[in-house]
Amino acid sequence: MKVVAFAGGVGGAKLADGLARCLSPHELTMVVNSGDDFVHFGLKICPDLDTVCYTLAGLANPETGWGRAGETWNTLSALRVLGAPTWFQLGDQDLATHLERTRRLSEGETLSEVTHSFCERWGIAHRVLPMTNEAVQTIVETEIGDLSFQEYFVKYRFEPAVRGFRFEGATRATPAPGVLEAIAACDVVIFCPSNPWVSIDPILAIPAIRQAILRARVIAVSPIVGGKALKGPAAKMFAEIGIPPSAQAVALHYGSLLKGFILDRVDAEEEMEIRSLGLRTLVTDTVMKTIADRQRLAQEILTFVQAEFLS
Amino acid sequence: MKVVAFAGGVGGAKLADGLARCLSPHELTMVVNSGDDFVHFGLKICPDLDTVCYTLAGLANPETGWGRAGETWNTLSALRVLGAPTWFQLGDQDLATHLERTRRLSEGETLSEVTHSFCERWGIAHRVLPMTNEAVQTIVETEIGDLSFQEYFVKYRFEPAVRGFRFEGATRATPAPGVLEAIAACDVVIFCPSNPWVSIDPILAIPAIRQAILRARVIAVSPIVGGKALKGPAAKMFAEIGIPPSAQAVALHYGSLLKGFILDRVDAEEEMEIRSLGLRTLVTDTVMKTIADRQRLAQEILTFVQAEFLS
Repeated sequence: MKVVAFAGGVGGAKLADGLARCLSPHELTMVVNSGDDFVHFGLKICPDLDTVCYTLAGLANPETGWGRAGETWNTLSALRVLGAPTWFQLGDQDLATHLERTRRLSEGETLSEVTHSFCERWGIAHRVLPMTNEAVQTIVETEIGDLSFQEYFVKYRFEPAVRGFRFEGATRATPAPGVLEAIAACDVVIFCPSNPWVSIDPILAIPAIRQAILRARVIAVSPIVGGKALKGPAAKMFAEIGIPPSAQAVALHYGSLLKGFILDRVDAEEEMEIRSLGLRTLVTDTVMKTIADRQRLAQEILTFVQAEFLS
Repeated sequence: MKVVAFAGGVGGAKLADGLARCLSPHELTMVVNSGDDFVHFGLKICPDLDTVCYTLAGLANPETGWGRAGETWNTLSALRVLGAPTWFQLGDQDLATHLERTRRLSEGETLSEVTHSFCERWGIAHRVLPMTNEAVQTIVETEIGDLSFQEYFVKYRFEPAVRGFRFEGATRATPAPGVLEAIAACDVVIFCPSNPWVSIDPILAIPAIRQAILRARVIAVSPIVGGKALKGPAAKMFAEIGIPPSAQAVALHYGSLLKGFILDRVDAEEEMEIRSLGLRTLVTDTVMKTIADRQRLAQEILTFVQAEFLS
């Protein structure tokens, strides 16, 4: 089965890892949000790409889901002495990723090329693509004004109430090489359990990707379980936009793009209403606490796709 | 006594520290070579400024003379995994200096302002000035072609034979604020035991500094002891330029700029010839192995200046 997975941060990275445990490298392509990317201390930082790659490489911190296992913080401590901004947690090992990415980009490599090279170095055989090699910036429109995603997420700890979102540069952006080909050739596109507003929507805001998605078979895994996000501000964002957060709300958010939807057992009572939208559904345990959970959920999703769409 | 010290790397930093132990903050200004500065991974690195500041702050690695005490190398290890260039030793704590300097420069602060702020944070009360806030680049002309100083020094371990030097940008550069005022107001300018070719000459290559120096009382401490440099390529450079390395060769190099010269006891037999150039001389132990050595040498130099020139 040929699969394309759209992913943002921690939840998306976990399912991407589960899929990579079930599918061969030529069966799976990950397309990762780059709307959160930003420049800090002159360094290009790609939080979602890094989370996905560290997770696939087995380098991720199992406690936090982001950053690296066994990370040290000696640079950050020395920055604090200098009175430097330390709101973004720059780990010593993580810094190497930002430094080398910045160096290669400045020498003219694309973000795709750098990512491919890093994956090789880290032993990741499956294909990880940024959504685009061009600049797209997620802006969170809040009660205290427009904030870049990292400011909103890290500096302000997603406290300001959200009024809307925009993805600067998206309408002019072209997909990274391989993205459209992978979508055209796949059996299914899976929207991983990532934040719909700020992880998946930025990818869909690139016109050529949206066009390709309209011709593809797409399913989504709800990042909302029991009315809450497992991590991050997804549920809070739904509420502030005026929509009670639920699995159904996620299904409605993606609307007619979807053919299938995976929701958690705790939300089983929403299944009929989601089916009434014309979607095939899978109700299962979607919370991935262990690596075995990732693999099991991925396999259930692939079996669901096979049974419902490919048989 | 008002003193201005010109300094480059490790030897210069040690004497600067000795002088700071003998003089109050309003009596001493350090002017530091910035011709070695370079950009690596997008970060502005100022090796001589950092060596001088780390030494004055008591943060320097006592084993190497450069870098920081208790340094860790976790970023560098992670860079190695990525196949990144690791010829320049980027320590985790040292990185914070480069990161915050780069950030502040990109926000419009000058190198002087950044250096002043870092000194405050590190508890350095004496004034440390870069020679200029503008770009001056030391190019070492070698048998294998022109090399930037860091390439020559670190990447090629100063192996290629030297044919000459040039200081790109120097003739257009203006001194950092305070440099000319400090020289005009001082009783003596001391050329620390730094490399004449690549530490002191770049400072003198700035026309306004050279003009000011011509009107000042200048003394130099020989970085050549027993025909050898204590550290680095100074002796090798003299030889490759065609001049047998010696204390006398250093005195001749600076020529008529000097009024006095400090040489090591092991070179005492050169004293008469140096005096015949019209210079007052001090023969003493110039090798600074301990912090007490730095303070003792500095005090002997100040006593020599007082006795020979100010009494």
